Amino acid sequence: MRRIAIGQAGGPTVVINSTLVGLVKQLKDEYELRFIEDGFEGLVDEKYKVDHEETIDWIIQQEDRAGACLGSGRYHMTAEDIHAVIQFLKRENISTLIFIGGNGTMEALYKIHLEAEKQDYDLQIIGLPKTVDNDLYHTDHAPGFGSSAKYVAHSTRDLSYDLQSMKNFEQVRIIETMGRNAGWLAAASGYLKKKEFEGPHYIALPERKLCEKGLTRAVKNAVDQFGYAVVVVSEGVQWQNGSQIERAVVNGRTVLGGISDEIADYLRGKLHLTVRAESLGINQRCATSLVSSIDKKEAYLVGEVGAKWVGQNLNNVVATIQRTSEENYNVEIKPVPIKDVANSGERLMPDEFIDNLDKYYEWLSPLIEDIE
Amino acid sequence: MRRIAIGQAGGPTVVINSTLVGLVKQLKDEYELRFIEDGFEGLVDEKYKVDHEETIDWIIQQEDRAGACLGSGRYHMTAEDIHAVIQFLKRENISTLIFIGGNGTMEALYKIHLEAEKQDYDLQIIGLPKTVDNDLYHTDHAPGFGSSAKYVAHSTRDLSYDLQSMKNFEQVRIIETMGRNAGWLAAASGYLKKKEFEGPHYIALPERKLCEKGLTRAVKNAVDQFGYAVVVVSEGVQWQNGSQIERAVVNGRTVLGGISDEIADYLRGKLHLTVRAESLGINQRCATSLVSSIDKKEAYLVGEVGAKWVGQNLNNVVATIQRTSEENYNVEIKPVPIKDVANSGERLMPDEFIDNLDKYYEWLSPLIEDIE
Repeated sequence: MRRIAIGQAGGPTVVINSTLVGLVKQLKDEYELRFIEDGFEGLVDEKYKVDHEETIDWIIQQEDRAGACLGSGRYHMTAEDIHAVIQFLKRENISTLIFIGGNGTMEALYKIHLEAEKQDYDLQIIGLPKTVDNDLYHTDHAPGFGSSAKYVAHSTRDLSYDLQSMKNFEQVRIIETMGRNAGWLAAASGYLKKKEFEGPHYIALPERKLCEKGLTRAVKNAVDQFGYAVVVVSEGVQWQNGSQIERAVVNGRTVLGGISDEIADYLRGKLHLTVRAESLGINQRCATSLVSSIDKKEAYLVGEVGAKWVGQNLNNVVATIQRTSEENYNVEIKPVPIKDVANSGERLMPDEFIDNLDKYYEWLSPLIEDIE
Repeated sequence: MRRIAIGQAGGPTVVINSTLVGLVKQLKDEYELRFIEDGFEGLVDEKYKVDHEETIDWIIQQEDRAGACLGSGRYHMTAEDIHAVIQFLKRENISTLIFIGGNGTMEALYKIHLEAEKQDYDLQIIGLPKTVDNDLYHTDHAPGFGSSAKYVAHSTRDLSYDLQSMKNFEQVRIIETMGRNAGWLAAASGYLKKKEFEGPHYIALPERKLCEKGLTRAVKNAVDQFGYAVVVVSEGVQWQNGSQIERAVVNGRTVLGGISDEIADYLRGKLHLTVRAESLGINQRCATSLVSSIDKKEAYLVGEVGAKWVGQNLNNVVATIQRTSEENYNVEIKPVPIKDVANSGERLMPDEFIDNLDKYYEWLSPLIEDIE
């Protein structure tokens, strides 16, 4: 019986466990499974669960909860680590490695592939996508993004109505979203806006430098017209004459955050209004109350299709989501070489969406609307 | 036809519009209505909408959205303001004043009553309760609290599972809740905790001073046992040797907030772990995705019953919620003198709940669970 190692890595999404469950349900009767704990750190430390029936049952029961149930985390593997990983896989007779993750994960998988070749070890590798930032190339969108976009859109609408009713107490609210260097999530904040008076009145995306004058003008206009202003800013935004704001550096990875506080300080000084910075925080990637049903379905499907590829001996591929028609929303899961995804870097929002948010919202609609 | 003025005041809840709709649907055919905009500031400034059919229809359509649809805000009325309010009500032939609000609102209504007596104006006053902090006396609980408690409980569970999967990257998360000087909301964070390893591992309530040693020990224990620790802290908490942390003072009102950052700094220095402060923010009072259905129903009921009291000539009363039995959850809406509510101050959590959270969760359960 072939033996497969399975892991989850990077920041969790609210549907990352659906991908795992879709995968495991397909594989469990035909293969021996090893569940790597805590992502690549666990792979290096050889920490795993074997596929006892209780473990399989337990995993299947975790589908609806937040977090990555195997443990994910962030860990930067050294060349030495990767060498040891291949030794471990050989020793354990593991012929297939499947990881669910984002850009960092795909880069790591590609390095593992190169090392396996070097050590002449015949290793099948499959990458399954997840990211709330939607910054993976070669896939129309990644599982996890739709639910987070739904969360950002709902929160912005609710926070906007809340602020409107409190405008004699507080006039400006700066909502900070996730997204790293890509604006997909921040831009989703306007998806539910139906009327001009509703927020957001200004959206700052990391793809464009933040212009102080434009921001001030937009806020002043909204306050003059409606009595209040809602600004949405992505964590990766930088001022025209500034750099990104780092909340912390952990294990060599920069955690962005804090630009909303800077904007609040700036506007307070400039306009003498009450301004509050409001970070949407980690809830963006873990709120089980706002899961998009289509996102969940696709997350599951990606796992299921990835599992089928094991038997078909597809190798070094990422399971990507491709739309099949412009008319009715429908998708196919297609293999793309891991190398291509790993080498493409972060996928930013294209100009055609940034310059025409309505076009973006049309694209986004099927990922958020709960159609069923 | 008697003329009634209706307003909303203070921080909105996610069901404050249900109370308004319950009220308006009962009153609209029998009375002339005046809808005060932006709370007491609008009352002083004589800003109101008349009850054209479109206005009534519009209000009824706002039931499911966040914020107070008439505008609420915070405004401190001077003695002069209150004098002018009675003049305005007289001039407009308004014989009944109904406001939906919390402690500050009930105090303001009581002052208006005293001024009406002084000016010998026969004014009927009815207060309808709302507060996410649940710090109103003489009512079992206030509309708005159940939904916010549900939000805090869900968020804490989700954030806990998220952190668990990221424990090799981040070990401690400090979740800050609303509540002002009362711990009801913060304590609700543990409602969904089913297993020892799940967060919260420590809850700090404003009713008790925060002990550095106890906090550090609890966090260290959780990290040792489970690899991570979730702390929940109410915005009103103070260190054993410190004072409350003020985010800002607006219109003379202190906005609390920031204790989670202090705790994060403290624990970072003490334990050398990665610690992140996470404020649940304004979403606690406006997230339409986590409305408790029983809370919404009771909010509506409070409005409906308040409307009936107009014809029954009840005066200077607050519509309070009383449980009718210990066995099966059921409530009655009963009048309590506004004076009693206004003079009782903030209702803190009783010791019997603080010392026995399971008992509190039993009490809380019908307000959160969506039974229907």
